[in-house]
Formats: sequence, structure tokens, C-alpha cells
Amino acid sequence: MKPEDLAELHAIYQLKYRYVRGLDTHDWPLVASCFTDDARVWYNDGKFSKEGRETIIGFLSEMLDESFYSSHIVLHPEIELIDANNAKGIWRLEDIVHFSGPNSFFGNPPVTGGEEMTGAGYYYDEYVRLSGEWKIASMGYARLFEVIDRPDARSQREVDLNPRRGVPATG
Amino acid sequence: MKPEDLAELHAIYQLKYRYVRGLDTHDWPLVASCFTDDARVWYNDGKFSKEGRETIIGFLSEMLDESFYSSHIVLHPEIELIDANNAKGIWRLEDIVHFSGPNSFFGNPPVTGGEEMTGAGYYYDEYVRLSGEWKIASMGYARLFEVIDRPDARSQREVDLNPRRGVPATG
Amino acid sequence: MKPEDLAELHAIYQLKYRYVRGLDTHDWPLVASCFTDDARVWYNDGKFSKEGRETIIGFLSEMLDESFYSSHIVLHPEIELIDANNAKGIWRLEDIVHFSGPNSFFGNPPVTGGEEMTGAGYYYDEYVRLSGEWKIASMGYARLFEVIDRPDARSQREVDLNPRRGVPATG
Repeated sequence: MKPEDLAELHAIYQLKYRYVRGLDTHDWPLVASCFTDDARVWYNDGKFSKEGRETIIGFLSEMLDESFYSSHIVLHPEIELIDANNAKGIWRLEDIVHFSGPNSFFGNPPVTGGEEMTGAGYYYDEYVRLSGEWKIASMGYARLFEVIDRPDARSQREVDLNPRRGVPATG
Repeated sequence: MKPEDLAELHAIYQLKYRYVRGLDTHDWPLVASCFTDDARVWYNDGKFSKEGRETIIGFLSEMLDESFYSSHIVLHPEIELIDANNAKGIWRLEDIVHFSGPNSFFGNPPVTGGEEMTGAGYYYDEYVRLSGEWKIASMGYARLFEVIDRPDARSQREVDLNPRRGVPATG
Repeated sequence: MKPEDLAELHAIYQLKYRYVRGLDTHDWPLVASCFTDDARVWYNDGKFSKEGRETIIGFLSEMLDESFYSSHIVLHPEIELIDANNAKGIWRLEDIVHFSGPNSFFGNPPVTGGEEMTGAGYYYDEYVRLSGEWKIASMGYARLFEVIDRPDARSQREVDLNPRRGVPATG
């Protein structure tokens, strides 16, 4: 790999880190700045699929409301530079969510507050460079597992094991 | 970013990794070697603030005693090289602690042994280069959340959710 | 560090990421492609030691059977390039395993399904370059801790705290 390619990878890593920091700190302008206008996302194996930056931000800020405290970590980037303005790549994801209030997007039975969700998976991203800056054109993740622990007992936890082990059905 | 700047970032990453390895393995000389003489720290939003390398090491080796088993991981470095000898940066933190005995620094009710603490946050670091080697001049972190699980039941867990979501009140 | 050395580190990082991805996705041909013919492993402080690529893959695919859902993450690489074709290094490890069925390799009392195992430690790896490609010649890890949570209650959890704090007894 050439030194100038390492600098491109570095720029893509920084983009991803800003995205995740925006997500966990609820800095929606920062999250918005990471996407192209026509970006598409397919979170959680496509359970949550959205198109267009404004639609994505509206969705995220509704689902990750004030009661939603998350820690998303991304690791193991395997990025392929396709040409000067296109790249794609895989990242490992682990995420912890503490629900401090009801959330209608998760859980069966519903999340009412006090639950902890933990999960793992792989992101499959596509990046484009616009006016010299890398942006996210497409982003989604496939789960290895997702777990919800209820406040009262671990015997009430929900475990969702994905037999595809992080390999996406779509995308 | 220039190739020589990537090499500086690499050196700063190595410094941070040595620091965390020293912390989790209780290798206090290794931890000490990471700081400047007059370094300052403000762990846990300033709950634990100390100045001077010897004071910091004395504090850490007391709090992280033989009964304290930790795993700190640092990720998502967003480092800014200010000039040839100064840099600053943000890192994500996740930490797991297993208490195998009492610890007076944590918990309400007090930690007596058997508890597990999990947390997440952002480090805000400042680095200086002295005689060619990067050292930590200032380090602190702001929490996303911190959780203590009691040995008997998850219903007795302590959850501390930070409404500032990892953005520091000081530092 | 020279730019061309950063490119070597990048290649070694990619090797490690492919290995871990193969492990968690049960892609055994991918895992096999990461090792030299005569590789040796000493997982879990040497509790599981094997020699030879085929022996290692046979062992892993038996222990990590269909009921075994894992998330291994590797961080904080401290890699030393010894010469053009040899390198060694330390990585931090954190791992989560969800057992969805019995597993005879873990647990006391035995794992019957529904357990969660969490652990942390340090990998100590050796790499060699063969025909221009980095491969794993030796890999093992020393634990910081390993925990098994039983499905019924956290009071039944198993906690194994390593007094060597991730420093290997062998290797």
C-alpha cells in the first residue's frame, strides 16, 4: 500500500469516528455532515432502512431520543479504495444501549425503561469523495447477536442470535 | 495528511496503548513513563483530579488495588497535530471493572466485592513532545454512562446516565 | 517510523482483522488462510494449545460449533517489525460468547445453553512474511478475566480472575 493511500484510509477512519461520536452524543448536525445528500442506510439487517440525509437524521433523532444512552464502537476496518473517489469497507460493531424510558422501536415485550441492550455485527459501508471530502453514501450492518436484558432478571432477557453470523442478506 | 504526520499519529497511538496496558496490568512504572512531570488528570468528569506524575501514580495504584481487575479499551482517535511538539485529541473509552474486594472509591451503597462496573465515555487528551518523545500532558474523560451490577440481582444495579453525553463540563 | 513501515503494520492489522472476522463468522477457510502451515496457538494461557494449521482449524471448528455465537474484538496493536520478514506484537482482546447449546470446552458446572461468557486479555503474536504475504506463525493470549453468567441468576456466575493480569506464563 502506498503512503498516499494510507492517508486516504486515515480520512475515511476519521469520517466513521465522527459519525459514531455524533450518534452517541446526539450531535445531529455532526451526523448529518457525514452523509451524502442521497445516502441510504439499512441498519440492523435492513429492519431500519432509510434514504436521503434528512430522512435518516429525522429517523435517528426520533429513535435515539433523550431516554436512549448508547455506546457504539467500530473496529477492524477492512477498507478497499476502488478509485480516487470511491471506497467501500467492512467494520466490526459492538453497541451497548441503556434505555432510561420507553422506546417503541425495540423489544418484545416493549421497552419501558431500565433495559440494557447489547449487540455485535458488521458494517458494510460505501464512501464517495465529493469536493475532496469523503462522505458516507451507503451504510448498513448485519448482526452477530442482539440481547436485551430486563431490569428484574436475566431470565427475562431476549436473545436474538443471527444464523447468518454477520453476513448480510441484502446490501 | 502527510506521511510524516501519520508517523506522528502512530507514535501518539502507541503512547496511549502503553498507558492503558500499564493501567490494566498494574505496571505502574510503565504508566509513569507515559506522563510529563507536571501532567494533570481529571478522570470521570473531574471526580478524580490530580496533578503531577507522582501524585497521579500514587492515586492510581491506591484506587486500582490488588482486588481491582479492569479492562479499559480506547478507540476512534481524533488527534489534531497543533505544531511539532503539541497535539490534542479525543478517544472513545469503554471500561469493565470486576471488584474482587471492597473499594472505597466507588459505589453507593459501597462496593464490597463481587460487583461489576461498566462504563463508556470520551477522553480529551493533550500531548507534548519532550526530547523527541510524546508524553501525556493532560488527560481526562467525560462519561456517557457508568453502571454497577451487584452480585445478587440486576435489580440492585446502579445506573448513572450523564445528560451531557460525554461532553466535558471542564477541560 | 518510516512510511513503508506503516504500510507493513497496515498489512499485519488487516491479517489480524481477517482472522477475527473468520472466527466470528465461522468462515474456516478464511481463518486457515491466515496461518502458516506449522503455526502454533496457545489460547487462554495455554489451556488450548495446538500445532499445525489443520489441527488448529479442526480444533476451532469443533469448539466454536453451531451453537457458539461470539464477538471477539482486538485493539491497541503494539507491533515490532523485527526484520523484513518477521514481526511480533501485542493486542488487547475482549470477547463475548453466547452459548445457545451445550459446550464441553467451557464451564464448571458445564455449559448447557443460555450462558454468556465475557473475557479480556492480551494476545502475543508472531508473524512471518511468506512470498510477500504476512501470516500468523504463533498466537496466544493471556487473560485479564473471564466470566460466565448463568441464565437464571447473576449470583450463579463464574468469575475467573487472573492474578498475572494478562502477562503470559508461557510464550
